[in-house]
Amino acid sequence: MSDPEELRRILQAVSTGSTDVDSAVAAISAAAPSMDFAQLDLHRPARTGNPEAVYGAGKTPEQVIAILRHFAAARQDGLVTRVSDEMATKVIAALPATEWLPVPRLLLQRSGPPKAARGGVAVVCAGTSDLPVAEEASVTLELLGNQVSRLTDVGVAGIHRVLGRLDELRAARAVVVVAGMEGALASVVAGLVQVPVVAVPTSVGYGAAFGGLAALLGMLNSCAPGVSVVNIDNGYGAAVVASRINQAGLGPAP
Amino acid sequence: MSDPEELRRILQAVSTGSTDVDSAVAAISAAAPSMDFAQLDLHRPARTGNPEAVYGAGKTPEQVIAILRHFAAARQDGLVTRVSDEMATKVIAALPATEWLPVPRLLLQRSGPPKAARGGVAVVCAGTSDLPVAEEASVTLELLGNQVSRLTDVGVAGIHRVLGRLDELRAARAVVVVAGMEGALASVVAGLVQVPVVAVPTSVGYGAAFGGLAALLGMLNSCAPGVSVVNIDNGYGAAVVASRINQAGLGPAP
Amino acid sequence: MSDPEELRRILQAVSTGSTDVDSAVAAISAAAPSMDFAQLDLHRPARTGNPEAVYGAGKTPEQVIAILRHFAAARQDGLVTRVSDEMATKVIAALPATEWLPVPRLLLQRSGPPKAARGGVAVVCAGTSDLPVAEEASVTLELLGNQVSRLTDVGVAGIHRVLGRLDELRAARAVVVVAGMEGALASVVAGLVQVPVVAVPTSVGYGAAFGGLAALLGMLNSCAPGVSVVNIDNGYGAAVVASRINQAGLGPAP
Amino acid sequence: MSDPEELRRILQAVSTGSTDVDSAVAAISAAAPSMDFAQLDLHRPARTGNPEAVYGAGKTPEQVIAILRHFAAARQDGLVTRVSDEMATKVIAALPATEWLPVPRLLLQRSGPPKAARGGVAVVCAGTSDLPVAEEASVTLELLGNQVSRLTDVGVAGIHRVLGRLDELRAARAVVVVAGMEGALASVVAGLVQVPVVAVPTSVGYGAAFGGLAALLGMLNSCAPGVSVVNIDNGYGAAVVASRINQAGLGPAP
Amino acid sequence: MSDPEELRRILQAVSTGSTDVDSAVAAISAAAPSMDFAQLDLHRPARTGNPEAVYGAGKTPEQVIAILRHFAAARQDGLVTRVSDEMATKVIAALPATEWLPVPRLLLQRSGPPKAARGGVAVVCAGTSDLPVAEEASVTLELLGNQVSRLTDVGVAGIHRVLGRLDELRAARAVVVVAGMEGALASVVAGLVQVPVVAVPTSVGYGAAFGGLAALLGMLNSCAPGVSVVNIDNGYGAAVVASRINQAGLGPAP
Amino acid sequence: MSDPEELRRILQAVSTGSTDVDSAVAAISAAAPSMDFAQLDLHRPARTGNPEAVYGAGKTPEQVIAILRHFAAARQDGLVTRVSDEMATKVIAALPATEWLPVPRLLLQRSGPPKAARGGVAVVCAGTSDLPVAEEASVTLELLGNQVSRLTDVGVAGIHRVLGRLDELRAARAVVVVAGMEGALASVVAGLVQVPVVAVPTSVGYGAAFGGLAALLGMLNSCAPGVSVVNIDNGYGAAVVASRINQAGLGPAP
Amino acid sequence: MSDPEELRRILQAVSTGSTDVDSAVAAISAAAPSMDFAQLDLHRPARTGNPEAVYGAGKTPEQVIAILRHFAAARQDGLVTRVSDEMATKVIAALPATEWLPVPRLLLQRSGPPKAARGGVAVVCAGTSDLPVAEEASVTLELLGNQVSRLTDVGVAGIHRVLGRLDELRAARAVVVVAGMEGALASVVAGLVQVPVVAVPTSVGYGAAFGGLAALLGMLNSCAPGVSVVNIDNGYGAAVVASRINQAGLGPAP
Amino acid sequence: MSDPEELRRILQAVSTGSTDVDSAVAAISAAAPSMDFAQLDLHRPARTGNPEAVYGAGKTPEQVIAILRHFAAARQDGLVTRVSDEMATKVIAALPATEWLPVPRLLLQRSGPPKAARGGVAVVCAGTSDLPVAEEASVTLELLGNQVSRLTDVGVAGIHRVLGRLDELRAARAVVVVAGMEGALASVVAGLVQVPVVAVPTSVGYGAAFGGLAALLGMLNSCAPGVSVVNIDNGYGAAVVASRINQAGLGPAP
Repeated sequence: MSDPEELRRILQAVSTGSTDVDSAVAAISAAAPSMDFAQLDLHRPARTGNPEAVYGAGKTPEQVIAILRHFAAARQDGLVTRVSDEMATKVIAALPATEWLPVPRLLLQRSGPPKAARGGVAVVCAGTSDLPVAEEASVTLELLGNQVSRLTDVGVAGIHRVLGRLDELRAARAVVVVAGMEGALASVVAGLVQVPVVAVPTSVGYGAAFGGLAALLGMLNSCAPGVSVVNIDNGYGAAVVASRINQAGLGPAP
Repeated sequence: MSDPEELRRILQAVSTGSTDVDSAVAAISAAAPSMDFAQLDLHRPARTGNPEAVYGAGKTPEQVIAILRHFAAARQDGLVTRVSDEMATKVIAALPATEWLPVPRLLLQRSGPPKAARGGVAVVCAGTSDLPVAEEASVTLELLGNQVSRLTDVGVAGIHRVLGRLDELRAARAVVVVAGMEGALASVVAGLVQVPVVAVPTSVGYGAAFGGLAALLGMLNSCAPGVSVVNIDNGYGAAVVASRINQAGLGPAP
Repeated sequence: MSDPEELRRILQAVSTGSTDVDSAVAAISAAAPSMDFAQLDLHRPARTGNPEAVYGAGKTPEQVIAILRHFAAARQDGLVTRVSDEMATKVIAALPATEWLPVPRLLLQRSGPPKAARGGVAVVCAGTSDLPVAEEASVTLELLGNQVSRLTDVGVAGIHRVLGRLDELRAARAVVVVAGMEGALASVVAGLVQVPVVAVPTSVGYGAAFGGLAALLGMLNSCAPGVSVVNIDNGYGAAVVASRINQAGLGPAP
Repeated sequence: MSDPEELRRILQAVSTGSTDVDSAVAAISAAAPSMDFAQLDLHRPARTGNPEAVYGAGKTPEQVIAILRHFAAARQDGLVTRVSDEMATKVIAALPATEWLPVPRLLLQRSGPPKAARGGVAVVCAGTSDLPVAEEASVTLELLGNQVSRLTDVGVAGIHRVLGRLDELRAARAVVVVAGMEGALASVVAGLVQVPVVAVPTSVGYGAAFGGLAALLGMLNSCAPGVSVVNIDNGYGAAVVASRINQAGLGPAP
Repeated sequence: MSDPEELRRILQAVSTGSTDVDSAVAAISAAAPSMDFAQLDLHRPARTGNPEAVYGAGKTPEQVIAILRHFAAARQDGLVTRVSDEMATKVIAALPATEWLPVPRLLLQRSGPPKAARGGVAVVCAGTSDLPVAEEASVTLELLGNQVSRLTDVGVAGIHRVLGRLDELRAARAVVVVAGMEGALASVVAGLVQVPVVAVPTSVGYGAAFGGLAALLGMLNSCAPGVSVVNIDNGYGAAVVASRINQAGLGPAP
Repeated sequence: MSDPEELRRILQAVSTGSTDVDSAVAAISAAAPSMDFAQLDLHRPARTGNPEAVYGAGKTPEQVIAILRHFAAARQDGLVTRVSDEMATKVIAALPATEWLPVPRLLLQRSGPPKAARGGVAVVCAGTSDLPVAEEASVTLELLGNQVSRLTDVGVAGIHRVLGRLDELRAARAVVVVAGMEGALASVVAGLVQVPVVAVPTSVGYGAAFGGLAALLGMLNSCAPGVSVVNIDNGYGAAVVASRINQAGLGPAP
Repeated sequence: MSDPEELRRILQAVSTGSTDVDSAVAAISAAAPSMDFAQLDLHRPARTGNPEAVYGAGKTPEQVIAILRHFAAARQDGLVTRVSDEMATKVIAALPATEWLPVPRLLLQRSGPPKAARGGVAVVCAGTSDLPVAEEASVTLELLGNQVSRLTDVGVAGIHRVLGRLDELRAARAVVVVAGMEGALASVVAGLVQVPVVAVPTSVGYGAAFGGLAALLGMLNSCAPGVSVVNIDNGYGAAVVASRINQAGLGPAP
Repeated sequence: MSDPEELRRILQAVSTGSTDVDSAVAAISAAAPSMDFAQLDLHRPARTGNPEAVYGAGKTPEQVIAILRHFAAARQDGLVTRVSDEMATKVIAALPATEWLPVPRLLLQRSGPPKAARGGVAVVCAGTSDLPVAEEASVTLELLGNQVSRLTDVGVAGIHRVLGRLDELRAARAVVVVAGMEGALASVVAGLVQVPVVAVPTSVGYGAAFGGLAALLGMLNSCAPGVSVVNIDNGYGAAVVASRINQAGLGPAP
């Protein structure tokens, strides 16, 4: 029974004799299915202001608008990923308060003022073509209340570009590395820092990149310990992992 | 709370005043985790006599002996798949009542007399090399209480061999088709019967058979409706599916 | 000779002397090719009202219209899958009695009143993106005369959603599980029910989903027995299998 | 030196003193490169009237028109494969004598009257969706002077359809089997005939057909001997192989 | 009814009144199933002396001995492929008349004197490592009564080795090309001859040869028309195809 | 210049005139290469007691012994993974203080007393066959000073087994999920906890598990956010990631 | 410290007492990060006139225009690859001095007169469909100051076409081979020359060419030594490798 | 006719009348086949002392001994790769002058004193497990007369190890990079040098390394220009390429 107050109410009725035992057994049992799971807290309600992500590709603008209205009613932040120009135009026409971020192709509907940025996550990006995925990660991280440091275009073909920003890298509590092609940046970065590296292979590249497979395999086989990998182009997923790492040691949000 | 008697007992204590409401709330809440799952009956006890399968490859004889002893104590049938000669020898030395079936490489420990064979499942096998997998299916089916009809070496390279046994095929309530190489037998059989066909690709073949991949893809792409597929060489898995289909319409076992 | 009446007619002519033996030998032999196969009943005529499925993708509207007219003439239900908006518009203009179901992208031409719904099949769907495939399965099942129970958006990321509808799941005689991404729902459901689970991997997902390959492999490797798998996005195929399972134990349709 | 007369002429000039030795060495050496290859007959001129195939996809209409003009000047048949509607329109506008075959998407420019059809090749096609590839094979075979017998829509899901046309199959000197999905038709046909079977996997199918990979692997692993395979959708290639087989035993064309 | 005499006998009985019509209908119908297949001659008996191939890998010596005894009794040639040294020793001990060919790893049991060699097939082999597969093809071809010309170690890395034996190549009525690694020899040879080329990829090579996949794909994509492909390492299969091509134009064997 | 004292010494020599400017420029420049990297601290010395992992497979016992002696001299913990029985025997004979852990196949050489266990990491294991990889993770985590909670044999085929230990799961600061076959456990667990889930696919399974590929793809496509993935069977790698996450919020080790 | 003059200045200040030792230590240390990398010359400035390549696909015309303006300002040649017609039109409108090469789809902005062509690289192209990639290589080579010899349409299906141009091949200091389909040309050429062969697989082909995979594997498995391979369709990459090889032995450019 | 002197001799005989014209025509024609190819110099004789490589795996010791004796007779160096301990023992017993190099598993039979080492090739090796492949490259390079600089264990997980040996890297005329796992070292090195980088993926790694596929794809997709790739584990092949590059600019060997 999820609602202790309801349980207490029934028990008090039993206690006062206004409900007999059989009726109480039946009431509690009948309520069990929904109660149980709430009691188990399997479905922890998302805290107010946390974004709920919607994968925009394959949905109609109408569906997205309906979902965002639902979020607004629930006072939750809403984040739509993989949004086309056409969808963005239609959604903004319907919901003018929505923000459109064209590089990461995100639509954002805030339920309140931005959360305070805490801790620090570095988002490292190998090439400018990887930027949309990196920005999907960075924006998501910021929405989740993380301080983000962006290191852009620091691919391993010019290793000095990574080394030249070592201080920023080492100041982070978690690092997201976004790279396509061979994905070597994850290994290089993981050899330079002591915190977890969340690697995002991108589908950038051609020919034998096979839509991100080369980068994915490269990152999974990183010779440097401390790397774990999310799905190809999944900047959002990396952000959720990195946010959890970053905030683990910060104590509860203010 | 899974145990209605326990719940009733608490409520009666509340009703009589021997327990106060707060204590009852606490007692019901504290008991919830374990109770819930019993109540949900997530873990339905296997009926006595049903075999519990153990994948023998990768286990030591000692581990298998221990597991079989556990089954014996629980009065459950035990079935061990993918058994090496060496393992069979050691297990039988320790547990002489165990049966060893060398073709399907199965060890079988019965908890009672064989179940009555009901309904009918046809197990169709393309070539003699596929026989171990087909026998794994057939023996498992028999253990589960199904009447089994074996059609062996009826590959499509000689289509008359299939056609010549059409009556047996059509008498079955479910058909298991076991084939390696190109796996075409599944499509041919499914075009001839009206009952579900459970297809088992085998790793038989060489070169571009790629360990059963060719047969697997062939069966998944069957142009005949009514085919579903289990994992490569998974005779046991096909038997479980076919047994459920066969027994669905038979009513409860006697 | 497929038509016993025709055979009888010839024999009677021989009997009465109106046909001589040589002519009768010739007539029966000449007819043999078609007779044989009818006699063997290789080509069982589909029962009236059963849908014959047409794969719409890659056909022209004109071809589809011609096929549907053919079905109408034969008094068979016609079902067209993977229909584009454009095709639907053209077909309905030509055949106004055709029904257009936009979510599963199906065109349906009925040859008579709907069949009575019997037994019960649960169609379980992991996410809203999987809905078109799930609906393809559900609509096909209904056309084939099965009672369908839809469980939508019960993905394993919130396991309580599956558990909360356990009663509906367990009431079914067969379960179709439709899931993309990692396809884990098939394993979870198969661990909860005792009837066959027909798993449909969908191409929903991105990156390393590889067009449904991840879900397909996941379902084939299900750790729970009782699962068999059909082709990626093949809701129609799953429905045919599940319908056969469901109706196996019901006896002949009224 | 390919031309013995030319060599003799030089030697005679040496013999008579009208050419000195050094000049003769130079003349023979200088001529060598081109002579050698003529002598080796590496570049056998295609016989007049034989089609030279051009892969139309990826070429511009202008390029195709130029090539066909080149063929016309050389009095060769020209065959363009994988032609779009747009290309066909433009080519026919420029070269009105060109024939457009929309089903196999071929453009054909004849250099003379059709060749006499000799021998016999059966082109067997599993489903109507495979028809474009089958027609690419059939038309090419006819251009190359082969008698073609078309067996269409005889997939293995209804095995009686193949068996019902056994006489036509067995009358052929070579059989081309065109099938997508699981490609099982190649195995079934090869079990029924004694002549070589040239199998063409098609990209027809969806999901785990993986663009023809399933049919390709199926055909390569055919359990029936006598099957060899060409590239996915390569009707033209199969036709060239089958034409060579058919005509091998016919003696020189009249 | 396969036996016209039997059919005639029944009809005459009807004609004379010694059998009534109903009995005749029943008799013809009852006989149909088995008769049909004989009538259809689906199972053409192999002509005496033709080898029946047995895949030796995965069989026990005892199984192979039993099969060969069966062939001897049927007066058929027997050919066992992929034979281990150990199996060869045991089989020869039991059946001393069996021939053991160690390079192609074949066991051969003749049912009579060798067939006369007719026509001509060239078996071209890229490297010495490919020799076992090439010899499997050559020996099978000889058993089937074909004249075989062996061109060994003529890989494309030294193209002059192929060119230097052009006359032998061009004298053949069919060419089998056996090559591993990149399999380029098939394209080069097909550009030099006018007869069908049957290509056999071998598993020779390492690393990205992926067990013959590189050669297989290379041969399927041959830029020269006239090439068809059999399974990896399948020398036997190529021989059957090439024998059929060679003998197609030769008329019946003497 | 990495050593500030050395730099200061040179500058003081310049300051006092005992070194001239040119010599100082040369000295600083010459020292630069090695200094720079120390200064950049690219090669942070591992803190005493931290294990350095050695991949044992493919090394000789002699090599492993030498490496462990090197670690002992450097007062570093040494951890050898993927150790065969034979290697273990030889190493322990040479270095009797080494610990041998047969289930995860690890050799461990401690440089001091175990580190205090801090925080909490749950290591969740789907089946007993996955135990070696899970133990590789657990032992590594303990060596790195993490409190480890082991949840064994809680596969999704019996979802109640996971749910029954929810409290332990939710007490952890990071969760390692080890699963083969379809790897669905990662998604289920990630839907139940709020901390990062590090997923380890194992090579457990057969047929279409393809050596862990099915589990790998399943985990990468997890429908539940918060999952990142390491290489197949890489328990060590997962432990390093999880240890970094766990200790991030704990402050410096005592 | 990258700038010896700056270092000298500080040391002289120390020497003269105008800077104290501590300040000098701080100054040198503070400057270290940027100095170090210049000193290491990790980022060698590209020599004036060398093209910097920009991958045009996936960039907007505006981005490309901005990049080219940046190159112009830096007096560097700019090369944009994979340019669409639409992009070309827009870029030329903005930067009229840019050259548009439609076959290789390159945009070229020169910073000065073309470099003198030195040495010799042969670019060999199997078919006309491979020409765009071959021209990408040739144009890049010319921009980098290499003499280029183009051998077009010399595929191995007509081996005499390669042999007929042997002198040109052998005159080169490096050979680039561009081929799709089976990619056999690389092996044939490498067997004919003594210089390095840089092989470029192209995505030309269909069906089992799998987007260039067949050619890629073929080239990696070349039976002729001296071949190395770049990514599919990567004409630019091959040109950079071949240019380095060609110019290695030529001494510094004039 | 390859030998101009022989041609001149015949012509002079014609000129002086000691040979008649017909005899001369016959002599020149008869010699043509072999002459042509010599004239074309397709089969350039390997220069004395150059090693001819033999792939040892899959050959018997007897075959290797025979080949080495053949080389000795021809006064050629012989190099056998992938040699087992057992083969080495047998070969050395037969040919005691053969050198056995256990790390790269090479057998070497010299035909004379080592060639002078010229130029410079750096062989860079990511980890000690990659050493056998790296040594196969290094030893081959030395046999071919190249000065070799070995950089071992400089993987990218500790980027300072590469950077610390930059001078050695930059002194080379060609660089061979040998790496398994993700193969990222190729990209890092190519970003640091101006000469061609020949990348060798190794099969070192486990799980998703897929036998070297991850490293192969990584290297093919290198974001740094100047990299080309050879087959997995092909140290010999990389050495031949690098030797050709190194010696291209050195002029003829002394």
